[in-house]
Amino acid sequence: MLALTILGNNSAIPAFGRNPTSQVLQTQDDIFLIDCGEGTQLQLSKYKIRRSRISHIFISHMHGDHYFGLIGLLTSMSLLTRTQELHLHAPPLLKEIIDLQLQAANTTLTYKVHFHPLNEEGVIANTNKISIECFKVKHRIECWGFLFREIKKPRHIDADRVRSYEIPASFYEQLQKGEDYRTKKGTIIPNEELTTPATKPVSYAYCADTIYDESLVEKIKGVDLLYHEATYLKDQHLRAADRFHSTTAQAAEIAKKSGVKKLLIGHFSSKYEFLDDFLSEAKEIFEETELALEGLCFKV
Amino acid sequence: MLALTILGNNSAIPAFGRNPTSQVLQTQDDIFLIDCGEGTQLQLSKYKIRRSRISHIFISHMHGDHYFGLIGLLTSMSLLTRTQELHLHAPPLLKEIIDLQLQAANTTLTYKVHFHPLNEEGVIANTNKISIECFKVKHRIECWGFLFREIKKPRHIDADRVRSYEIPASFYEQLQKGEDYRTKKGTIIPNEELTTPATKPVSYAYCADTIYDESLVEKIKGVDLLYHEATYLKDQHLRAADRFHSTTAQAAEIAKKSGVKKLLIGHFSSKYEFLDDFLSEAKEIFEETELALEGLCFKV
Repeated sequence: MLALTILGNNSAIPAFGRNPTSQVLQTQDDIFLIDCGEGTQLQLSKYKIRRSRISHIFISHMHGDHYFGLIGLLTSMSLLTRTQELHLHAPPLLKEIIDLQLQAANTTLTYKVHFHPLNEEGVIANTNKISIECFKVKHRIECWGFLFREIKKPRHIDADRVRSYEIPASFYEQLQKGEDYRTKKGTIIPNEELTTPATKPVSYAYCADTIYDESLVEKIKGVDLLYHEATYLKDQHLRAADRFHSTTAQAAEIAKKSGVKKLLIGHFSSKYEFLDDFLSEAKEIFEETELALEGLCFKV
Repeated sequence: MLALTILGNNSAIPAFGRNPTSQVLQTQDDIFLIDCGEGTQLQLSKYKIRRSRISHIFISHMHGDHYFGLIGLLTSMSLLTRTQELHLHAPPLLKEIIDLQLQAANTTLTYKVHFHPLNEEGVIANTNKISIECFKVKHRIECWGFLFREIKKPRHIDADRVRSYEIPASFYEQLQKGEDYRTKKGTIIPNEELTTPATKPVSYAYCADTIYDESLVEKIKGVDLLYHEATYLKDQHLRAADRFHSTTAQAAEIAKKSGVKKLLIGHFSSKYEFLDDFLSEAKEIFEETELALEGLCFKV
């Protein structure tokens, strides 16, 4: 299971109490932080998410509303004498900026940061249970989306059955992988008699900031949860295109074409105080849409 | 008159709803921003201080809790299409960091920033009504205090008197400076008969982050309002010294020795939830002490 908590859902300028982009994806073992706009460390405190459990941070691009809160978070982790290593996946220039800021403060962090520059599409990280890929999206500057997939889980062994067939423990791993068992006498016992299927692995795609781009469809096909920005209402599609952003209708169109289970929209422009129209416009095209409201937790 | 609003009063890590250091000093014409910790732009909105009226920003040193909010503020000003020039007084390295961040975002600000690197003590800016000096304080890295002084104001001309003595308008400026008037017949009319004194210029000293340092006394002697950090309660004086910070008692001692009218203390350590003891400890030594609580406005 994955649990996604929204920390910030506003574009560029913070407005109407809405914060710049940041999200937290929790797995059983880890917390992943996705983008880190100014004030993210305050939002983490507000929603009682433990900074110390963040193992990986992913930064989509170098617009400030997606990373200006990072240096403060890294520094605070150090002031709290963190020792666990941290993995930071981000555009190459971010390392230079962080290094310069640490140097200016004459500070050495108390923990090791493994900086992984985003260079090409593909798998960028693997934990025991999750595989993370990055993919390009189209924005005014280089920008990356992230795809989190649970790794296919082993089948559950039926303890009573394996005992009754006297199957040796040394064969359990093969059973979990789905292999049939062959007895000494040569009888085949089908895997389905000995195991039950694992729960289906789930997936989450985060598309960061992007213009309407149908080439996304192939990359995110069939994910359980899709976050796609919707900076503007649909009547502003010219402005959206001009600024390499999307509208409600465009986000919903991508969700529909990709056959995802659920769509979350966010990155709302500061010109909108109320968000009701965002939801209704997207739902006209893709019913399973929700607003990425701050503090909400979406279970996948 | 000067009006000082506290936007943030916490040290290093934001805690208990307290923000990192930032203050706003308002004059009749200008708004000066003093330090700019993460979240300052949100605090400006919260306390309804107009970003557009900020003419000068002063950054004391390169610890993040004093400047991590700056780049977000500068960027937002640009997104709001500011055109007025902005003066930024800060340690030289800050320019490099800002330039790198703007370059990474492929952004050019919509307004001109005049960057004035802090290099030596003395006057660093003058508006029509205020003169601003910087002075060194002792911290773990190079750190500057700022002294804001109203410029001596011209004496008020008594309209009835100058008319009755038939004094020509061309002499008014000299009258405002305090000169006596000599009539054509050679009679001296003393300035005091023609003018009344201007209100006394007031002054504010901001001492940023500093260890207890008596050499400050000469620099801030007799100011109307002094901000001196008090990161710790007095029993923590060893820790304070070790980290180049001060205690309540030390801040009060400096205020007393400097003969200031009022002392504000702030930069409270994140280890303290309640601040009552800060006030009582400082008042034992210097009665005219107040806590720099966020949102409070102190008129000088």
